[in-house]
Amino acid sequence: MTRTRTGVWFVGARGNVAATAISGARGIARGTTDDTGMVTAREPCTRLDLPPVDGFVFSGHDIAERPLLHAATDLADSGIVDRATLEAVADDLREIDERIETGTARNCGSAVSLADGDTLDSDHGVSGVVEQIRADYAAFAEEHDVDRLVVVNLASSEPPMRDPERYDTLDAFEAALEADDADLPASSLYAYAALVDGHPYVNFTPSTGSELGGLRELADRENVPHVGRDAKTGETLLKTALGPMFAGRNLNVMSWDGFNILGNGDGKVLDDDDNKAGKLQSKGGVLSEVLGSDAHNRVRIDYTPSLGDWKTAWDHVHFEGFMNTKMTLQFTWQGADSALAAPLVLDLVRLVSYADEHGEGGTQTHLASFFKEPMDVDEHDLSRQFAMLESYVEAHRDDAAAESTDPVRTDGGGDEAAGTGAGTNANSDADTVREAER
Amino acid sequence: MTRTRTGVWFVGARGNVAATAISGARGIARGTTDDTGMVTAREPCTRLDLPPVDGFVFSGHDIAERPLLHAATDLADSGIVDRATLEAVADDLREIDERIETGTARNCGSAVSLADGDTLDSDHGVSGVVEQIRADYAAFAEEHDVDRLVVVNLASSEPPMRDPERYDTLDAFEAALEADDADLPASSLYAYAALVDGHPYVNFTPSTGSELGGLRELADRENVPHVGRDAKTGETLLKTALGPMFAGRNLNVMSWDGFNILGNGDGKVLDDDDNKAGKLQSKGGVLSEVLGSDAHNRVRIDYTPSLGDWKTAWDHVHFEGFMNTKMTLQFTWQGADSALAAPLVLDLVRLVSYADEHGEGGTQTHLASFFKEPMDVDEHDLSRQFAMLESYVEAHRDDAAAESTDPVRTDGGGDEAAGTGAGTNANSDADTVREAER
Amino acid sequence: MTRTRTGVWFVGARGNVAATAISGARGIARGTTDDTGMVTAREPCTRLDLPPVDGFVFSGHDIAERPLLHAATDLADSGIVDRATLEAVADDLREIDERIETGTARNCGSAVSLADGDTLDSDHGVSGVVEQIRADYAAFAEEHDVDRLVVVNLASSEPPMRDPERYDTLDAFEAALEADDADLPASSLYAYAALVDGHPYVNFTPSTGSELGGLRELADRENVPHVGRDAKTGETLLKTALGPMFAGRNLNVMSWDGFNILGNGDGKVLDDDDNKAGKLQSKGGVLSEVLGSDAHNRVRIDYTPSLGDWKTAWDHVHFEGFMNTKMTLQFTWQGADSALAAPLVLDLVRLVSYADEHGEGGTQTHLASFFKEPMDVDEHDLSRQFAMLESYVEAHRDDAAAESTDPVRTDGGGDEAAGTGAGTNANSDADTVREAER
Amino acid sequence: MTRTRTGVWFVGARGNVAATAISGARGIARGTTDDTGMVTAREPCTRLDLPPVDGFVFSGHDIAERPLLHAATDLADSGIVDRATLEAVADDLREIDERIETGTARNCGSAVSLADGDTLDSDHGVSGVVEQIRADYAAFAEEHDVDRLVVVNLASSEPPMRDPERYDTLDAFEAALEADDADLPASSLYAYAALVDGHPYVNFTPSTGSELGGLRELADRENVPHVGRDAKTGETLLKTALGPMFAGRNLNVMSWDGFNILGNGDGKVLDDDDNKAGKLQSKGGVLSEVLGSDAHNRVRIDYTPSLGDWKTAWDHVHFEGFMNTKMTLQFTWQGADSALAAPLVLDLVRLVSYADEHGEGGTQTHLASFFKEPMDVDEHDLSRQFAMLESYVEAHRDDAAAESTDPVRTDGGGDEAAGTGAGTNANSDADTVREAER
Repeated sequence: MTRTRTGVWFVGARGNVAATAISGARGIARGTTDDTGMVTAREPCTRLDLPPVDGFVFSGHDIAERPLLHAATDLADSGIVDRATLEAVADDLREIDERIETGTARNCGSAVSLADGDTLDSDHGVSGVVEQIRADYAAFAEEHDVDRLVVVNLASSEPPMRDPERYDTLDAFEAALEADDADLPASSLYAYAALVDGHPYVNFTPSTGSELGGLRELADRENVPHVGRDAKTGETLLKTALGPMFAGRNLNVMSWDGFNILGNGDGKVLDDDDNKAGKLQSKGGVLSEVLGSDAHNRVRIDYTPSLGDWKTAWDHVHFEGFMNTKMTLQFTWQGADSALAAPLVLDLVRLVSYADEHGEGGTQTHLASFFKEPMDVDEHDLSRQFAMLESYVEAHRDDAAAESTDPVRTDGGGDEAAGTGAGTNANSDADTVREAER
Repeated sequence: MTRTRTGVWFVGARGNVAATAISGARGIARGTTDDTGMVTAREPCTRLDLPPVDGFVFSGHDIAERPLLHAATDLADSGIVDRATLEAVADDLREIDERIETGTARNCGSAVSLADGDTLDSDHGVSGVVEQIRADYAAFAEEHDVDRLVVVNLASSEPPMRDPERYDTLDAFEAALEADDADLPASSLYAYAALVDGHPYVNFTPSTGSELGGLRELADRENVPHVGRDAKTGETLLKTALGPMFAGRNLNVMSWDGFNILGNGDGKVLDDDDNKAGKLQSKGGVLSEVLGSDAHNRVRIDYTPSLGDWKTAWDHVHFEGFMNTKMTLQFTWQGADSALAAPLVLDLVRLVSYADEHGEGGTQTHLASFFKEPMDVDEHDLSRQFAMLESYVEAHRDDAAAESTDPVRTDGGGDEAAGTGAGTNANSDADTVREAER
Repeated sequence: MTRTRTGVWFVGARGNVAATAISGARGIARGTTDDTGMVTAREPCTRLDLPPVDGFVFSGHDIAERPLLHAATDLADSGIVDRATLEAVADDLREIDERIETGTARNCGSAVSLADGDTLDSDHGVSGVVEQIRADYAAFAEEHDVDRLVVVNLASSEPPMRDPERYDTLDAFEAALEADDADLPASSLYAYAALVDGHPYVNFTPSTGSELGGLRELADRENVPHVGRDAKTGETLLKTALGPMFAGRNLNVMSWDGFNILGNGDGKVLDDDDNKAGKLQSKGGVLSEVLGSDAHNRVRIDYTPSLGDWKTAWDHVHFEGFMNTKMTLQFTWQGADSALAAPLVLDLVRLVSYADEHGEGGTQTHLASFFKEPMDVDEHDLSRQFAMLESYVEAHRDDAAAESTDPVRTDGGGDEAAGTGAGTNANSDADTVREAER
Repeated sequence: MTRTRTGVWFVGARGNVAATAISGARGIARGTTDDTGMVTAREPCTRLDLPPVDGFVFSGHDIAERPLLHAATDLADSGIVDRATLEAVADDLREIDERIETGTARNCGSAVSLADGDTLDSDHGVSGVVEQIRADYAAFAEEHDVDRLVVVNLASSEPPMRDPERYDTLDAFEAALEADDADLPASSLYAYAALVDGHPYVNFTPSTGSELGGLRELADRENVPHVGRDAKTGETLLKTALGPMFAGRNLNVMSWDGFNILGNGDGKVLDDDDNKAGKLQSKGGVLSEVLGSDAHNRVRIDYTPSLGDWKTAWDHVHFEGFMNTKMTLQFTWQGADSALAAPLVLDLVRLVSYADEHGEGGTQTHLASFFKEPMDVDEHDLSRQFAMLESYVEAHRDDAAAESTDPVRTDGGGDEAAGTGAGTNANSDADTVREAER
């Protein structure tokens, strides 16, 4: 396999998920950590010839100024980024941090607007913002000579959009752009700027992104892959694993209450009622789909600073069985949000790049298992969503280089971008890690 | 659809599961309760023309003398059998109780042998026991003029059998019978007696039952359907729903500890180490299959009298994700064991009867979702097991009377067996219940 | 001991707590249940000569019309009132129900005002309402010839009052009454009406009640005992048991999040944000007192209909120990609210009556262990609050008839009020119950 | 206050608790960590003039050879010892490690005997072992010129002793020593060696230690303080906080099941049934004392390697309230065992030294709150045990230097033993830490 250089552009590049994804990818490249938690590192995806993680070149937009290395250091203090990796990738993080461009925060809600840094919005109109974003994407792609640029939205949840059907056609969307329409949210501006120039787009958040009819039309016209939205990493993941059990056994779920507490920046933004609304909408919908009924269904997200990135969820499921006997299932999930999300980000970049390489534009429905609200997919049963990915792999495996040996690393070693030579002798360590992989 | 009369023979006919299944079936017939918790009462099974529950005629073996009505009354006190049903079916229970025959407790372990009642073993050798069981089956089938007799093992867990490969052929099994082999367990004697005369057999427990090679050979030769073993109703059910989530996301489960406490007769028998061994063996194996790895895996079952039939399980799952971050999932399951098991008993009788009617003998692999150790099936992912049932239905639905309206009740009303007229005016209530069914 | 007849007047006499307290008291009188859960039925209170529960004569105010027997029947369906007691006390409940008078709902919040029944407010001004309440108390006391009348507030939580210091003197309070002051809440009107005529008053709820300076002045002037507020029965009870453990061990509680779900009428009223505010204020304050620090402290109460009276609370305590190691305690409490509250109601009536009999007017600080916000007491450590009750008993036990045999029943048997003879032969059953008591 | 040098001798000096206590004490001395978790660092104990932690000089016995620094490094990897402290105290740990002497493992059970290192037992008889231990104590005390030597047993739990009444007198004990009695357990040999030479003794474990009548007699004769046994740090601590709540409210606990999983060396030793017996005996007894009843009471401890030092306990409490309504409390405790135990070790050394200084020999009953089985104390209610400590302080505070400012540090700075100068400039940091203390 020839070495591929994949450009990865994170909107929200200095946030916890981005910091974890970058640290982990560089740690894999430098041989200090492995690929546990990456769906593409195990069967069936290992049968596809996916672009290697160590060939990823990172950059992105952000409106915060806290350096990437600070974020990673805080994550290390929380036990998420391991110490050995932090040391090994510190220079990489500093270098990547310098590339990060100032972004937009249009309609991101008051919680986000209070962020510390500058934004593009102060001296650009809507269409000016889009032009700048396109220019940022293009400059990076050219400077780093990447084969492909994948844009991933990792920014804080926006408040839900009103009347999205206004933008149901590309013409309507572009007219709004021209008219400096104040309602267009940042996430859709980033998505437009990506799709219009043929860059694949992943919406990892509950924000609008490429969901608008006009942007879907654009993706189809340009034959660019895009997918979303709202990655499922914790409580909702469990719901889509457990819900089918209740449904399949004809147990009547009377109520499902879920309480989430967390203490990271995401938690702080979600403490704002408007921003939370977007998140809750996407979390709540899953259950009625999975259960096929309208159980009492509550989801709360609250901010508890001491927890940091450790999202803790308690769910209480009250259901009745035979002769209406009432029973209960409770669970507590203690997960490090960023550690759960980051490997999926890397998976999606790999899978969307693969689709792009194979000329498969439009919505990527086989990636439904990654999302709370998978675009164009009604199936919410996690195992069946996994089966959709398996079918996709089954249909493509003829293409795959059967002799592919390592799912995530090439033989080329640890260098990320041109100009850093720190990783040249990483191979010996890498072998150790490789052997330790399950 | 013509009214079918299905004979249902419970080994362990006075236990909690049997008492709940019978009360519920008769309650459905008499219109006091509904079919919540029955897999066959929902899609996709409703597309099959399965025998109606109100046409079931019950009897069985037991070695305990506590009347069925006492068991049902105790269950009502625990909130499992509802009061209205208890009243409506009290006469049915009394009548059925009189039909129950004395059984065998060979190799059932010391805990079971201390039961209060007589057994066949005092004045019969092994082959004599089998002859008596066959005669009991036959007499009941004839007296009640049933279209078919399904034998279901609901008796307490036996200690695990040593060297089951001794009985790998039918010849070996029958030679052992002739030789009064003291090692043959009761569950296999009941299974043999059923299969040899063409009665379908369901092993709802972890005991040996029809698992032996010789009995499989017999089922194939006689083309009789049989299936087992160890119905999954609680903690293990959850494992097969949650395990695939960890595996599919490439999360490394380091340990999975499960602690079960319960207070019913089953719990008392399992307090005996030998009997528990059989249960634990079957509970433990599932996890390594589902996870495809050898996580530290502990299951404990303890007897806590105050809980009665309410099995409470706490499971602690310790797993690592990206960059080896260690995370935790805990759940607590508070389920009424009999209320979870009983509807599955009725489902299995319906589905095995259907197979028998369609000439489909041998192991019923499409019923894997019902069992902890499904015979001849390696798939433990619950959703995929459900998909196996769906495929079976899909393949058979042409046969089904598309116009079938009610999944579990015919128009014939509430009578169970000839001779009881108590249910003749149950129809009006039944309509109400029917409408209330989801 | 001479038989005492204690009049017990419940504000909110048709609610769940009242229905449970009355059913239980009458069940004890009729010998169908025992005194488990009553603090006064165990050491040290058994050393005091408290008025017996079977001498309680019940009545009260309510604005709901659902009969007491309906409430009790629903509670029996939820497993709270036992069937035998329900049958035994049905006639008592019907009789008591007829005595219940129409009450006021002034400033009880919109949730309560939407209740089904009439109120005094439609045709009375504020002082007219008070006159009517006094007349209701007096008429009952006279008709039933009680030795003493204790008024207990069991009504739904009111929204918190603004500027309570307006009513810091009795003069100010009475002037407001005269002026038909629209801000006076129902709970304080009931309290005034009680205290002014010398009836002891217990505020079991977080509403204002006798907390106002003017009413404290009145209680002192009239030397009437009163006590409150907000009985602690679940999550807060646990906080006052567990909090001192953290404090005593110098463990630094960083956050304590508590989530309560419940489905009874109380839950419905608390679903209204205004009414909830009163409750949360009282629940939240305890923790900082117990811990002596300002940990992040969240309490939520949400309405989940399927749970009925079963309040379920999950608490997550995040704390740090030596070398700032972060640790976690979680608990889940599944309690039947009414079953926890009702025996305390009976305890408080007994203890307040005793104080009144001994001429001990004013705030009853030795009863702090019963309340979330004990009036005039800063101690929140549950064990130390219990010790306050012990000291009180120790100081009074000389008074006690040492030969007192049964803590809650006299020899007079089961009759509640004049006119019902149903209980005359209850003694034989009662003996059985007495022996069964622990 | 004059600087005091307190010698601290740990039996089990290379185990996790010892490593944490030493690291923490030296971290406090060097100003990298604070005294969170130390009971003596808060009211009321701050009113006593206790010996400062930074004046502790450590040594001890062990039969394991893994260096102290390795243990501390592993604990740092588990998030227990913080990185800054680990670095700051590494030299201290190396120096202390060199002083640790080889110990005895007599009657410590097969699990312990399989440890890697040498023991005294290979070339000494019982009395020879005692002579050697005394010599070790004396040599250390002399070499380091300590004002006092406190011996603390932190070694793995021994199997319970048979017939301890054999050693009810000092004569009997000493005769057994002379006779090389093979049944004397190591913990009692260490205790004898301490007490006979006037060194205060603390038994932090469930092993026999100074519990024997003969050793109590010795402590009284020599007027040496001693105390034990089995420090309560997790599940049992919670039981003594929660149990009184159930008792005080007259709630009938029907069953209390506790399941502990842990993965450290202690867990490994306890996986051995004999050693576990000692532990379970001491954990189980508390509950019936606190509840004053014989509830069904189960405690299990299981070894789950992935958890390391993080002991996780799930407790399920099933209780009944008014009208026999059955309710449930569950809790999950996730505690770092060593981080919970270590500060108590330091507290006990301080408090026992104080008693010794004040000539208060014999059993120290005011320290009951520290232990699962407090010697000579029946009170198990945690709050009341705390009150016993408060009374002691109240009775002694006149002695205390009221102007004492820092509870755990003197002005003398960070040096532990003569010969290490690494801490000389620790004061500036220390001030920072001091200010950060709550």
